[in-house]
Amino acid sequence: MLKLFQYNWQVREDWFTWCEDVPEEELLKKRTGGVGSILYTLFHIVDVEYSWILSLKGEPEPEEPPFEAYASLARVKEFSKLCHKEVKPFVISWTSEIESQTLSETNSSGETINFKYGEIMRHVIAHEIHHIGQLSVWSRELGKEPVTANLIGRGLFD
Amino acid sequence: MLKLFQYNWQVREDWFTWCEDVPEEELLKKRTGGVGSILYTLFHIVDVEYSWILSLKGEPEPEEPPFEAYASLARVKEFSKLCHKEVKPFVISWTSEIESQTLSETNSSGETINFKYGEIMRHVIAHEIHHIGQLSVWSRELGKEPVTANLIGRGLFD
Repeated sequence: MLKLFQYNWQVREDWFTWCEDVPEEELLKKRTGGVGSILYTLFHIVDVEYSWILSLKGEPEPEEPPFEAYASLARVKEFSKLCHKEVKPFVISWTSEIESQTLSETNSSGETINFKYGEIMRHVIAHEIHHIGQLSVWSRELGKEPVTANLIGRGLFD
Repeated sequence: MLKLFQYNWQVREDWFTWCEDVPEEELLKKRTGGVGSILYTLFHIVDVEYSWILSLKGEPEPEEPPFEAYASLARVKEFSKLCHKEVKPFVISWTSEIESQTLSETNSSGETINFKYGEIMRHVIAHEIHHIGQLSVWSRELGKEPVTANLIGRGLFD
């Protein structure tokens, strides 16, 4: 489990670096697909990971902060760093015993839905990789080479 | 490990179904980013998963088949089905003991590179999710709703 989170965190940092060479108006520009802009995608990835991990920790889920308050590269990076302090210890201390614990959530219709902890963790992993795939298309539209999505060659298993 | 593969296989089938409502010329049209077209992306996902799994099984890696021979929805689906017969038993029989086994590959410069089996498996998982993210952007460009990328709500943990 940890390795795929570490992969996502590395790739996210690589995209933050990639963003440094791109004018902020391009980072904020509304694009087709996904959640609509490069910076909003990165913000959304951070927010979703953070919210789910808080739920798994049994802490109250915060309301989604308004993107407008984070709409710059520096602020999204800061948000990611802040959330990471909560997320990382939980992911690192993950054990297979936690896999089948149940999280009960209430949906918008007032129904209770049960999730396995292992299900949520994999959902969070897949969520980030999926959105990063969208960034790679937008990157080519901008005429820029995207960050590599390779998991091999990152030193994660050295 | 298995759950994320099962997620990918489900999502891939959903995309095959999605493709049924799209004219073949749109499926084959060259697009910006990724490997360039919707059908070639699906073909590439299947081929990469298959090739790596054969390597992990110690079988000789086949040459990448020319996409031209598979350039229709029916043929890519058939290719996926055929490869799946080799891939699924290996993934299902995965145990944590195999994680740290080493696969040695020779790169194009003649150097030997060592990978952990667990590293390759996660690489294959991330590879498919990443490319599916690209399809979701192209789907919106076509004015169509993409297949959901959610891992929760698929009955994978029931």
